[in-house]
Amino acid sequence: MSVGTIHGVGLGPGDPDLMSLRAHRLLTGAKHVAYFRKAGRTGQARAIIEGLLHPDVVEFAMEYPITTEVPLTDPQYNEILSRFYEDCAAHLRALATGGEDVVVLSEGDPFFYGSFMHLYTRLKDDVPVQVVPAVTGMSAAWTATGSPITWGDDVLTVLMGTLSAEQLTERMKTTDALVVMKIGRNIEKVCAALTAAGKYDDAWLIEYASMPGQTVRRLSEAAGQVTPYFSIIVVHGQGRRP
Amino acid sequence: MSVGTIHGVGLGPGDPDLMSLRAHRLLTGAKHVAYFRKAGRTGQARAIIEGLLHPDVVEFAMEYPITTEVPLTDPQYNEILSRFYEDCAAHLRALATGGEDVVVLSEGDPFFYGSFMHLYTRLKDDVPVQVVPAVTGMSAAWTATGSPITWGDDVLTVLMGTLSAEQLTERMKTTDALVVMKIGRNIEKVCAALTAAGKYDDAWLIEYASMPGQTVRRLSEAAGQVTPYFSIIVVHGQGRRP
Ligand SMILES: C[S@@+](CC[C@H](N)C(=O)[O-])C[C@H]1O[C@@H](n2cnc3c(N)ncnc32)[C@H](O)[C@@H]1O
Ligand SMILES: C[S@@+](CC[C@H](N)C(=O)[O-])C[C@H]1O[C@@H](n2cnc3c(N)ncnc32)[C@H](O)[C@@H]1O
Repeated sequence: MSVGTIHGVGLGPGDPDLMSLRAHRLLTGAKHVAYFRKAGRTGQARAIIEGLLHPDVVEFAMEYPITTEVPLTDPQYNEILSRFYEDCAAHLRALATGGEDVVVLSEGDPFFYGSFMHLYTRLKDDVPVQVVPAVTGMSAAWTATGSPITWGDDVLTVLMGTLSAEQLTERMKTTDALVVMKIGRNIEKVCAALTAAGKYDDAWLIEYASMPGQTVRRLSEAAGQVTPYFSIIVVHGQGRRP
Repeated sequence: MSVGTIHGVGLGPGDPDLMSLRAHRLLTGAKHVAYFRKAGRTGQARAIIEGLLHPDVVEFAMEYPITTEVPLTDPQYNEILSRFYEDCAAHLRALATGGEDVVVLSEGDPFFYGSFMHLYTRLKDDVPVQVVPAVTGMSAAWTATGSPITWGDDVLTVLMGTLSAEQLTERMKTTDALVVMKIGRNIEKVCAALTAAGKYDDAWLIEYASMPGQTVRRLSEAAGQVTPYFSIIVVHGQGRRP
C-alpha cells in the first residue's frame, strides 16, 4: 500500500471563482478534507467551498481550543496551541500512512501567515506534503480599491496589527506602500500609528475582500467602528509611472 | 450598441494550473486578447495561455519600444514609454467603445508591479475596466522553497532590485521576511546589500517559479551567475510558531 499525500490547498481570498484550477480539481476529487474553525462555527475556509465537495467526502474539522481566556504572553497559550497542532497532525499523518490523500483547506495563500504552516512543519518530514499557492487576501483587497498597490520601485511593507505601536509607527514611516493585516481589536493602535506616520488620511479599509459583504472605504470613514477579523488596511504606493 | 469591458486578467506566476477559474473562463471565451511583449518574442503572458484561446480570437500584441539604448534617467525614456502606453490604450478604448470586450493578459497579479496598471490608469475613466487578481510570482517562489515566508507577526518587505545599494541595505536590515524582485542586472548590488544587512547566507534564489525550468537554491550557490528576468530572492521570516 502506498503512502497518501497531504495537500495544503490555498483557496484564495474568499470568492470561489478566484480559486485556482488545481485547487478546484483537488477539492472536487477529495475523499478527505480537513480545515480549521472556531468551535461552533462553519469556518471561513469551509464556507468558501460550500457545494464543491463530493457527497461522500470525509470531513475533519480542527476546532481551535478556546484560547482567548489565556493571554498571548502566557506560556500556557503556546502549550495549548502546540498540543492542538500535534493532535491534528497526528490524525492527518495516520490518514496518509494509511494510504489516504487529504486536502487541508487554507484561506488565501497557505505559506503567507497561514495556520496550515503549523501542520506543515510537523508533517513534512514524515509524509508527502504538497502546497498549492493561491491569491492572497491582500491582492483581493487592493484590487477592490480600484488602485494599484505598487509602482516602479515602490517598497511594500506588510505588517500585522499585533505589533506594538512603536514598531508599527516606525515601519509605516519608512515604506511607500503598506498592507496591515490582523486588525480586529488592534484597530485603535493601528490608527494611532498611521496618524503618527502621516499616513492615516491615505489609508483604505477593506472588509471581507471578495467575499459577500465586501466593503471598501477610507479608513477615516470607519473611525470608531469595530472591524471584523477579515479586514485589511492598505496605503497605495505613489512611485514612478510613465 | 453597448460599450465593451476591458478585463485586466492576472494569469498567475506561470503554471496554467494556478490560473483562477475566472481567468480561465474569461480567456477561453475571449474574442479579443491583448498582451505586452518584447519585439520578436512570444511574450511570457502569451506563452502561459498557449492552447487555451479560441481559434478565431483576435490578438493584439503590444510590443515595447526599444528602450534599453535610452537610460532610465533620461526624460526621453519616460516620454517614449508614455506615448507607447497611450497608443495601446487608444486601441483598447476604441475596441471597447465599439462594443467589444477585451482580455488584457497580466503575469502574476495585475495591480502588483504589473504593466497593465499603465493601461488601467489611462482607461478607467472612459470605459468599464475589471481587474482579476491572481497568484503572484512571489507566492510561487516561496512555495517552491518548501518553507513558509511569514510567521506570527513577522514583517514582510518587498523590494525591487532597481533601488540603490543604500536603500536596499537599509530596508533589508530592518525586516524579518524579505522578497526581492526585478533582479536581473542588479544581482551584484542586491548580493552586496544582503551581505551588508547580514542576510546573504539565509537568502534563496528562485528562477522561473512554477514555470518550466524552475530552479530553487541558496543564493550563495548562484554566486557570480547571471539571473534571468523571472528571478526572485526570498529570506524567510523566523517568527513565533507554537
Ligand atoms: C492568519 S492571516 C491569513 C492570511 C492568508 N493566508 C492570506 O494569504 O491572505 C488572517 C488575516 O488575513 C487577512 N485577510 C485574509 N483574507 C482576507 C479577505 N478576503 N478580506 C479581508 N482580510 C483578509 C485579515 O487581515 C486576517 O486578519
Ligand atoms: C514587472 S514585475 C511583475 C510582478 C507580477 N505582477 C506578480 O504579481 O508577480 C516582474 C518581476 O516579477 C518577478 N516574477 C514574477 N513572476 C515570477 C516567476 N514566476 N518566477 C520568478 N520571478 C517572477 C521577477 O522578479 C520579475 O522581475
